[in-house]
Amino acid sequence: MNDRFHDLRQTVLEANLELVARNLVISTWGNVSGYDAEAGVIAIKASGVTYDEMTIDHMVVLDLDGTTVAGDYRPSTDTPTHLALYRLYGDHGVRGVVHTHSKFATVWTQAMRDIPALGTTHVDYFDGPIPCTRELTPAEVAAGYEAAQAVAIEEAVSPDRCLRMQAILLAHHAPFAWGTSPEAAVTNAQVLEYVAEMAYLESTLLGRTPDVLPEHMHVKHRDRKFGADAYYGQVTR
Amino acid sequence: MNDRFHDLRQTVLEANLELVARNLVISTWGNVSGYDAEAGVIAIKASGVTYDEMTIDHMVVLDLDGTTVAGDYRPSTDTPTHLALYRLYGDHGVRGVVHTHSKFATVWTQAMRDIPALGTTHVDYFDGPIPCTRELTPAEVAAGYEAAQAVAIEEAVSPDRCLRMQAILLAHHAPFAWGTSPEAAVTNAQVLEYVAEMAYLESTLLGRTPDVLPEHMHVKHRDRKFGADAYYGQVTR
Amino acid sequence: MNDRFHDLRQTVLEANLELVARNLVISTWGNVSGYDAEAGVIAIKASGVTYDEMTIDHMVVLDLDGTTVAGDYRPSTDTPTHLALYRLYGDHGVRGVVHTHSKFATVWTQAMRDIPALGTTHVDYFDGPIPCTRELTPAEVAAGYEAAQAVAIEEAVSPDRCLRMQAILLAHHAPFAWGTSPEAAVTNAQVLEYVAEMAYLESTLLGRTPDVLPEHMHVKHRDRKFGADAYYGQVTR
Amino acid sequence: MNDRFHDLRQTVLEANLELVARNLVISTWGNVSGYDAEAGVIAIKASGVTYDEMTIDHMVVLDLDGTTVAGDYRPSTDTPTHLALYRLYGDHGVRGVVHTHSKFATVWTQAMRDIPALGTTHVDYFDGPIPCTRELTPAEVAAGYEAAQAVAIEEAVSPDRCLRMQAILLAHHAPFAWGTSPEAAVTNAQVLEYVAEMAYLESTLLGRTPDVLPEHMHVKHRDRKFGADAYYGQVTR
Repeated sequence: MNDRFHDLRQTVLEANLELVARNLVISTWGNVSGYDAEAGVIAIKASGVTYDEMTIDHMVVLDLDGTTVAGDYRPSTDTPTHLALYRLYGDHGVRGVVHTHSKFATVWTQAMRDIPALGTTHVDYFDGPIPCTRELTPAEVAAGYEAAQAVAIEEAVSPDRCLRMQAILLAHHAPFAWGTSPEAAVTNAQVLEYVAEMAYLESTLLGRTPDVLPEHMHVKHRDRKFGADAYYGQVTR
Repeated sequence: MNDRFHDLRQTVLEANLELVARNLVISTWGNVSGYDAEAGVIAIKASGVTYDEMTIDHMVVLDLDGTTVAGDYRPSTDTPTHLALYRLYGDHGVRGVVHTHSKFATVWTQAMRDIPALGTTHVDYFDGPIPCTRELTPAEVAAGYEAAQAVAIEEAVSPDRCLRMQAILLAHHAPFAWGTSPEAAVTNAQVLEYVAEMAYLESTLLGRTPDVLPEHMHVKHRDRKFGADAYYGQVTR
Repeated sequence: MNDRFHDLRQTVLEANLELVARNLVISTWGNVSGYDAEAGVIAIKASGVTYDEMTIDHMVVLDLDGTTVAGDYRPSTDTPTHLALYRLYGDHGVRGVVHTHSKFATVWTQAMRDIPALGTTHVDYFDGPIPCTRELTPAEVAAGYEAAQAVAIEEAVSPDRCLRMQAILLAHHAPFAWGTSPEAAVTNAQVLEYVAEMAYLESTLLGRTPDVLPEHMHVKHRDRKFGADAYYGQVTR
Repeated sequence: MNDRFHDLRQTVLEANLELVARNLVISTWGNVSGYDAEAGVIAIKASGVTYDEMTIDHMVVLDLDGTTVAGDYRPSTDTPTHLALYRLYGDHGVRGVVHTHSKFATVWTQAMRDIPALGTTHVDYFDGPIPCTRELTPAEVAAGYEAAQAVAIEEAVSPDRCLRMQAILLAHHAPFAWGTSPEAAVTNAQVLEYVAEMAYLESTLLGRTPDVLPEHMHVKHRDRKFGADAYYGQVTR
């Protein structure tokens, strides 16, 4: 296919398939999108497609207003939320968004609780508690569900913090994660589920809300990975 | 084999094998049936057969009175309950029934508790709490266990609701799920287990019965998937 | 190899490998034995052998007094308990014994609690609560650990009940299961772990010891599988 | 490659890959090192490398002062802790060290609780509760995080006990395990996770801190595996 969006669609296809490989979705659930800021378009999974029949043709291309630019399928029902996230965070470097109903993250979402930062595993990725959005009112839902959700997201993670807090819990619904690429967003969704599970386990072990990681440990671990003198990973050559 | 029920049996065989692929059964447990309303027959797994030795010959064909029409094996012990479900719901479009002892759904069953609708994942599939049938009395069990169970099922999910509530918990025993095809019934059994697990997790996280999904969120999610203006999935062309 | 115990050893090897396939053991843990009553010998896994290097040569053959009859390896450390079980139950038809440290069954063992019969899944296999042996005294352990354990086992499951209660929890240690063949014993060990997990889940869901299955449901399910008019499985032809 | 550290690096590579096979790590997390006492060097995984792209070239060789002797990559961020463990325990026979964020062990770490010895599974490997280090003060972290951690480790497991207690929980962070080879260290990390999970399960089942294994059972099981008259495993020939 002579397709000027081929690379974007291929990257997004592979990231969608990773959701299955990492046990983050069942059935047709979940979706990954990628954003090409230069072209001003995103690619996203078509709605209701199963992962074993999915091909590059199921990756729909839209502009940030939601108009389909390429692709024969209807995009994911969650497309408005993906678009809202790119409009909020795209200028700050976000290039991939992931939505799942992964079990433990969804449980925190249903309980309307932030996931507290309980250990260094959490703060290696998320700089503080992972916030749950406030409950939307009946009036807001009636006036426009996805638009109201975008407002609630911005209240919970302001754009200037979006690379230090790359995930959010949508009240009563399920999590979204994002990153500087579709692959990075998938990893963030996976780590989100991991820390959501550990926070569940510690809470039930103790029979109470656990104590959060002390501030000086939080700062030390964040800075050795992300600070000016970071010493994690390989030097880019 | 020159078999006029070949397609039905093949579909039911494949759906049975999906129970293993989706981690819903161990050993010889569980069974799927399919209903051919035109022919007035169902096909169902033979009793006590392991999944790795199962072939199309283990799919027994019976009429709705339970008389074997084709097949050399004795049908599943749970056949009377499958037949009862088709007699109740067959005229409303039910074409597949699944029985498992999947862990979390069975735990709610043993605890004699409905699975509450705690989030949008639940109401995307089940329009309210998934009901547990009442306990049968010793007299009812003595007079006819499976017939009494059929009465209790009808009390819990009336035929007119059977496509909005495609699962039930049989008191002290285990769940049944159904759908408009054997494959759809397997998916409903899988989602049932998923929401049963999340309801367990939220209950133990909070140490109390969780709050149910607010009504306006319930209605919004149900309608975007099943309502007159639904925008989930692909348009049938 | 010209080996008159070849068939017994092969059967026992395959049953040992099933422990890995069914996720009941890690590392070198666990062991299965089989009993040839006519020859008066058992075959059992050698001690400390990993499952991926295991061959028929690692199956050691011993008489019921524990004297090695064939095989170059030292038998499992748990051999005295296997032998005690065959001496107790061999005349009642037991031909296979399995020992694992499967997680949930071991947790009940450590907690010194019987696994209560909470649903029909349990009573389809085990005719009542699965008993935990009493704690051995320091004097008993000093005088002969495995012999004292045999006494405690007999107190918990008398020989005449051994085919209706095919598993036991050894206090503070881990479970044993048995059956009319090594394969049947492995299935019983797997179902034991399954019901141990469900009993854990129901207990933590309710925050209290759950109610046991009512007597009339227990009797009905046991009898439809094991009673004089049983209608589970295929008729032996 | 003409590499005098080839065997050490190959052994360490294989042990790292075992972390994935045994479900102890996701993403780039975790690391294994091996110590060649004669050459006075360790090999350790490079920082931030994913397991599916990992080759022997990603195994970095350093002396015990942390100077790279061979390899083109930056070693794991956790290298200072590995080195501290070899300096403390190398003279007592430790030749492999493993770091993971395995879920249950990490949860105990975050909760700052020792893992109690609740059953024979635990004492077959760990001679008492698995200790959590004390919390480091802000001043200690500022003065040198990894050096302060080495002090806290020595306080929790003195060198003379290091082969009877082959694991430790680093406060708020995650576990380390070690052994007489890299492979043995991986097995200890896996058993650590197993007993951490069972201790979690028993604690939540009971709703309180469980009773520890009685002393006479602890001694009996330790001695049958490690005592002068041990009868576990094969005689070395």
